Amino acid sequence: MNISPNLEGYKIENLRELMHSTWDRFLSTSEAVAAINKGEVDLTFYLIYLTETYHYTFHNSRNQSLVGSREDNRNLHYMQFCFEHAKEEVGHDQMAHHDLKSLGVKLEAHELPGPLPATEVLIAYLYRISLTGNPLRRLGYSFWAENSYTYIMPIFDRLKSLLNLERKNMTFIVQHSELDVGHAEEVEKQIDKLAVSDEDRHAIAEVMVTSLTLTLTMFDSIYHEYSRLQKNQRSKYSAVCQFSRD
Amino acid sequence: MNISPNLEGYKIENLRELMHSTWDRFLSTSEAVAAINKGEVDLTFYLIYLTETYHYTFHNSRNQSLVGSREDNRNLHYMQFCFEHAKEEVGHDQMAHHDLKSLGVKLEAHELPGPLPATEVLIAYLYRISLTGNPLRRLGYSFWAENSYTYIMPIFDRLKSLLNLERKNMTFIVQHSELDVGHAEEVEKQIDKLAVSDEDRHAIAEVMVTSLTLTLTMFDSIYHEYSRLQKNQRSKYSAVCQFSRD
Amino acid sequence: MNISPNLEGYKIENLRELMHSTWDRFLSTSEAVAAINKGEVDLTFYLIYLTETYHYTFHNSRNQSLVGSREDNRNLHYMQFCFEHAKEEVGHDQMAHHDLKSLGVKLEAHELPGPLPATEVLIAYLYRISLTGNPLRRLGYSFWAENSYTYIMPIFDRLKSLLNLERKNMTFIVQHSELDVGHAEEVEKQIDKLAVSDEDRHAIAEVMVTSLTLTLTMFDSIYHEYSRLQKNQRSKYSAVCQFSRD
Amino acid sequence: MNISPNLEGYKIENLRELMHSTWDRFLSTSEAVAAINKGEVDLTFYLIYLTETYHYTFHNSRNQSLVGSREDNRNLHYMQFCFEHAKEEVGHDQMAHHDLKSLGVKLEAHELPGPLPATEVLIAYLYRISLTGNPLRRLGYSFWAENSYTYIMPIFDRLKSLLNLERKNMTFIVQHSELDVGHAEEVEKQIDKLAVSDEDRHAIAEVMVTSLTLTLTMFDSIYHEYSRLQKNQRSKYSAVCQFSRD
Repeated sequence: MNISPNLEGYKIENLRELMHSTWDRFLSTSEAVAAINKGEVDLTFYLIYLTETYHYTFHNSRNQSLVGSREDNRNLHYMQFCFEHAKEEVGHDQMAHHDLKSLGVKLEAHELPGPLPATEVLIAYLYRISLTGNPLRRLGYSFWAENSYTYIMPIFDRLKSLLNLERKNMTFIVQHSELDVGHAEEVEKQIDKLAVSDEDRHAIAEVMVTSLTLTLTMFDSIYHEYSRLQKNQRSKYSAVCQFSRD
Repeated sequence: MNISPNLEGYKIENLRELMHSTWDRFLSTSEAVAAINKGEVDLTFYLIYLTETYHYTFHNSRNQSLVGSREDNRNLHYMQFCFEHAKEEVGHDQMAHHDLKSLGVKLEAHELPGPLPATEVLIAYLYRISLTGNPLRRLGYSFWAENSYTYIMPIFDRLKSLLNLERKNMTFIVQHSELDVGHAEEVEKQIDKLAVSDEDRHAIAEVMVTSLTLTLTMFDSIYHEYSRLQKNQRSKYSAVCQFSRD
Repeated sequence: MNISPNLEGYKIENLRELMHSTWDRFLSTSEAVAAINKGEVDLTFYLIYLTETYHYTFHNSRNQSLVGSREDNRNLHYMQFCFEHAKEEVGHDQMAHHDLKSLGVKLEAHELPGPLPATEVLIAYLYRISLTGNPLRRLGYSFWAENSYTYIMPIFDRLKSLLNLERKNMTFIVQHSELDVGHAEEVEKQIDKLAVSDEDRHAIAEVMVTSLTLTLTMFDSIYHEYSRLQKNQRSKYSAVCQFSRD
Repeated sequence: MNISPNLEGYKIENLRELMHSTWDRFLSTSEAVAAINKGEVDLTFYLIYLTETYHYTFHNSRNQSLVGSREDNRNLHYMQFCFEHAKEEVGHDQMAHHDLKSLGVKLEAHELPGPLPATEVLIAYLYRISLTGNPLRRLGYSFWAENSYTYIMPIFDRLKSLLNLERKNMTFIVQHSELDVGHAEEVEKQIDKLAVSDEDRHAIAEVMVTSLTLTLTMFDSIYHEYSRLQKNQRSKYSAVCQFSRD
C-alpha cells in the first residue's frame, strides 16, 4: 500500500475525506477483507488478530503520554489532554488478552509470540511521531483511531457470525466502539483548537494517513501469517496453534 | 549534606520519621534558613528561589508521566496514578513564573537565567529515578513533596513579613499547601497498596531521602547565589538583578 | 510490498539467500526500477532520491551508536563494534547533500523538504530496533546495507547515462560502493561470532528483511512523489523544484 | 560541598585553575582523605570504592556516545570524537570488577550491591548533561577526569602501602593513570577547537566543577558507608562484607 498523503486542504472536513478515501481504498483491495467476506478464514485468523492488537495497543497509552512529557511541548492544555488520554488508554491491551483467554488461549501476555514485522513497524512509527517533530501530530493517529468503528464493524460482524463469536470474545472491539464516540468528538475539538497553522494541520494529516495505512498493512500482514499457517509454512505462530476453543 | 538513608524499617511511620529527621537536620544547619530567620535576606533571594522553583517544577509532570510510559511498568493501576498525577502537576511551573511577574520581573519563562547546578542535579536525579530502577521509587519523591508544607510554611511566613509579600506574590507556595493535603493521603495509600516487597520499600525510602536532600541542597545553593550577588561577584543572576518591584 | 520473512535457517548463506530473494522480488516489481529502465525519469527523480537519502542517512550513525549505549548491551566487543561503526558512518548524510549542491541545489541541509512518510517510517523502525529487543538485531540492517551495491549499481549506472551525471554528482553512491566491501566482511564476521542462538539469528534475519523492504518501499515512494510532481499535483517538493542544474 | 562555579574567564588556564581549586578544597576538607592519611581505613573501604567505581564507570562510554547520537549535535568532527572516545571507554568498568575479584570478591558484576545514592546522583547528572543542553558541555567532565591522576595518586599510593595492595589489585587506577596522559591533551585540543563562544565555555566549566564535585562527594559517601559498616549499622554492603582476601 502506498503511503503518500495528497493534501489539498486541512479542515476537519478534509481530514475526514482523506480518512474516508484511505479506508475505501483498503476495503476494496485488502486480501484480508476479501477472505473474510468470502468466509475463508477460521478462528486462527482472529487469534492472530487479537495477539497483534495486544502488541500495538500495549504501547498506545505509553506513546500518548510521551507527547505530554516532551520538553518542547509547552501547551499546558495539550499536555493535560495527553495525560488524560493516556490514562484512558491504560489497560486496553488487556482487553485483547482477555478475548484470547476467553477463546481458550492459556498463554500469559509475556508468553505470546512477539509482534509481526508490520506490527513492529507501526509501533516504531507511533513512538517516533510521539517523540519528535510537531508535538500535535499524534492527534492524526487519534483522529482515525477514534473514528474507525464505522469502517471495521461490518468486518467484525462478518467475523462474529462466521466464527460464532460471542460478545465476551469481542470485548476489545465492542467496548472500543462504545467508548470512542465521545473520544472522537474530543479529538476533533482538540484539533480545531490547537492546530492553528498550516504546518500543524499538514503534520496531523500526514500522521493520520501514514498511521492508518500502517495499521491496515498490519491487518493484511495478519492474513498473510494466517495463510502461511494454513499451508504449514514456518511461522512464529506455529508453536501456539494449539490455540483453540476446546 | 550527606546523602545516605539509614533504613531500619519501611512502614509509613518509618518513612515519616526518616523524612522528619532529614528536615530537622536541614532546619538546624541550613545557612539559608538561618539567614531568613535573622532577617538577612531581601527580595532578590525570593526572586532567585522562584526562578529555580520554576526550573525544577517544569519537569515534575514530565518525569512523573515517564514512570507510566515505561515498558517495564505493567501495573495498570499505578500507570493510571502516574498519568493522573502528571496531569495534576501540569502548569505548576507557571505559578512560580506568575509570582515572579507579580513582583515586577518582566522576563518570559524562556528568558530566565538557566538552572543553577544544584537545581540541574535535582532535575537529573528525578529523570533518572523515573526512567530506571524500581518503577515505584518515584513515589518517594511525591511522599515528601506532598508533605512539605508543614516544614516550609514557617520559613515562608517569615519571608512574607520580612519582604512584605502579598498572597498574589506567593501563589506557588499557597496553592500548593492547599492542594497537597489530599495528595499526601493519596500518595500514602499508593505506597501502602503497591509497595509489597522490602525491595520496593527500600527503593522508595532511598529516593525520598535523596530527592529531599538534593532539594534542600538546592535551597542553600540559592542562598549562596544570593550572597554572591550581594558581594557583587559573578553570577548568572547579575544581568537580571534589575528584577524589582519598582 | 509484503513484510514477512520466511526463515528456514539462519546461517550466513541463508541470510544471503533471503536478501537475494527480497532484492529479486523488488527488482522485478518496482515501478521506480521499471521507469528508470525505460528512461522515463529526469533529474528531479535523482534530486528527490538524494534528499530522502540525506534524511535517513542522517540517523544511521546515531541509531548505530545507540545500540552500544544500551544498558542491556553488555558485550564489550559488540559495544566497540557499534561505536567504531557509528564513527565510520558520521557525515555520510553530507555526501548526499554535497551531491545535491553539485547539481545546483542551493538549499542548506536544514532547508530541504522534510522526509517523505515512507522515509520517516524507515527512520522510526531503525531507532526502534536499535533501542529495543535483541541488541544484535541491528546487524541485520548493516548486513544488507553493506552488500547493496551489487544490486543497485545497475540502476545507478542507468541513471548516470540517462541524466548525464558525473562522478562528482554521485559521491554518495560511488564512495559507498568502495567503502562497503570491507564493511560487508566485517559485519558477517560479527554475525558469525556474536549470533550464537537461534533467537539471535532470527532477530537479525527479521530486521534484515524488514529494513530492506522498508528501504525499497521508500525508493518506490520517491518515484510516486516524482510522478506527482510531473502531474503538477501537490507535493512537499513543489517549492523546491526550482532545483536544477541551470 | 557547595556546587557553584565562579567563572571569571574560560581559557584552558582558567579551567585548569578552577579544577585545581576544586581539588584543593576537597583534599583539605574531605573526611575520607583525612582518614586515609591517618591510616584509619582497612580493605573494606577499598572494596566499596571499587564497587562504586564499577557502577559509575559502567555508564561512561554509554553517556559519552549519547552526546554523539543527539540530533542537535551536528558537528561531524565532534560526533567522531564522541564515538571514538566512547569506544576507548568500553570495558573500564570491568577493570574495577577485576580488581575486586583479585581481592577475593566472588560476586559477578550483576550481584554487586547497587550504587550508593551519591553514585546514582553522579550517574544521573552525567546522563542529563550528555542528553540535554549544550552538546559540548560533557567535555567538562572529560577535562577533569583525564587530568585527575595528579591529584589522586598520592591518596592511592597511601592506600597501597596501608592495605598492602599489589599492582594486580589496582589495574583500574594504574591503567587509567597511564592511558590518560594522551587523553587529557586530546580533550584540551577539542575544547580549544570546538568551544568558540562564551556560552560554550561557560557550559563546559559548569559541568567540570559540578561533575567533579559530585564525584568527590561520592568519595566521601563511600567513606561514610565504610564508617557505618565499622559501627555495625545497616548498610547495603553488610551482606557482602564477607568480601575479603582470605
